[in-house]
Amino acid sequence: MVILPEFCNSPNGNDAFYAESIPGDSTAVYSQAAQDNKVFLVAGSIPERKDGKLYNTSTVFNPEGSLIAKFSKVFHIDVDIPGGITFQESKTITAGDNLVTFDTPYCKVGLGVCYDIRFPELAKLYVDRGCQLLIFPTFFSVTTGSAHFELLTRARAADNQLYVATVSPARDETTSVVAWGYSCVADPWGEVIAKAGHEEAIVYGDIDPDFVKKIRSQMPLTKQRRADMYTVMDLSNN
Amino acid sequence: MVILPEFCNSPNGNDAFYAESIPGDSTAVYSQAAQDNKVFLVAGSIPERKDGKLYNTSTVFNPEGSLIAKFSKVFHIDVDIPGGITFQESKTITAGDNLVTFDTPYCKVGLGVCYDIRFPELAKLYVDRGCQLLIFPTFFSVTTGSAHFELLTRARAADNQLYVATVSPARDETTSVVAWGYSCVADPWGEVIAKAGHEEAIVYGDIDPDFVKKIRSQMPLTKQRRADMYTVMDLSNN
Repeated sequence: MVILPEFCNSPNGNDAFYAESIPGDSTAVYSQAAQDNKVFLVAGSIPERKDGKLYNTSTVFNPEGSLIAKFSKVFHIDVDIPGGITFQESKTITAGDNLVTFDTPYCKVGLGVCYDIRFPELAKLYVDRGCQLLIFPTFFSVTTGSAHFELLTRARAADNQLYVATVSPARDETTSVVAWGYSCVADPWGEVIAKAGHEEAIVYGDIDPDFVKKIRSQMPLTKQRRADMYTVMDLSNN
Repeated sequence: MVILPEFCNSPNGNDAFYAESIPGDSTAVYSQAAQDNKVFLVAGSIPERKDGKLYNTSTVFNPEGSLIAKFSKVFHIDVDIPGGITFQESKTITAGDNLVTFDTPYCKVGLGVCYDIRFPELAKLYVDRGCQLLIFPTFFSVTTGSAHFELLTRARAADNQLYVATVSPARDETTSVVAWGYSCVADPWGEVIAKAGHEEAIVYGDIDPDFVKKIRSQMPLTKQRRADMYTVMDLSNN
């Protein structure tokens, strides 16, 4: 499986100039690449134009090149950190309404994009849907990335006892928002098993479904939930 | 405010030998200490005997020495990690059913004990109840502590944009389960602002409610929740 970062077709996802329909030019390239290389391709995200709106959308292709999943980022990154980063995604992007999973011969995978990782409930709902790997194409800034990128990756992995891959663009100091970089993969024990620097790089992480089972058997967090005290209810559209 | 670790009156919380009623001998000492020092005292936890059962219970005293909160651990640590730690708390301890907060002149505080920190929902419910500081008296083993103690402290703080204090006994290699140590305090940005080693120590952390407000204003995670997609419902008894 190959994963690309958020806004992998453009320098700035807020810019309608780079928006495309799906299927479209970019996804045609992704489909062909998946087929040529016989891999599952999680094609980061692109600004998608649909019904006169823009979405921040991730597409997934199987080794035959077929589109098997499409996820639009559900949480807007609207932040205002003076001296750090100010970004109001809701001004241009419409949020998606659906959780999306896809099956592979290895395990079931759940999708989020970037800021979606900040909401522990999302990961919890994906656990309930049987996921053993969560994938977040991301574009964290240096301000938030240095503080939280690895922390959130490890925390979602340890809390939910599954693999988490967060995939960032390399750092480019010339863009309006500078990406943190440091793509990484954490295992179900919360350990980082693969990590990039801030330069362009390919990171390889081995996903072992047996290790997910082992950790969940040793420390059965999901079974230990207190359904009498609280419940996380899934109200999403699909 | 002074915080003691889990099972601060005994070497082994599973042992009925150290159990007491509340009020009882230990809590009389805690009450007096709070009054003498004019502090809020979160008296770690003790094995509490009540109605023929044992609970893992934290008590809180105000500067006048009055018991103002009582929380019994809600999640059993039942884990079996070969070569690491095997512990079946549910064999001896009855779990509590209540979330517990208390007010101070500084901020509202939510309580958990040790393994309770592993469940993100608990922290989320405390946010909804207005807490700006979560306190977890803990006794993590070296196996789980080295992997997760600081990670969980920082993650609960960053996800919920509040202060989190996790307070452990110092390491004692002669006990049946050896404590990790490394008590720490994380701030609403997820940074560790105070941290012990594994030896006996006093750790000081400054709690600034204005910093909670600032972080929540810069990145309004709670307002950004997708109530249309999921809900975390509080079903606890109080």
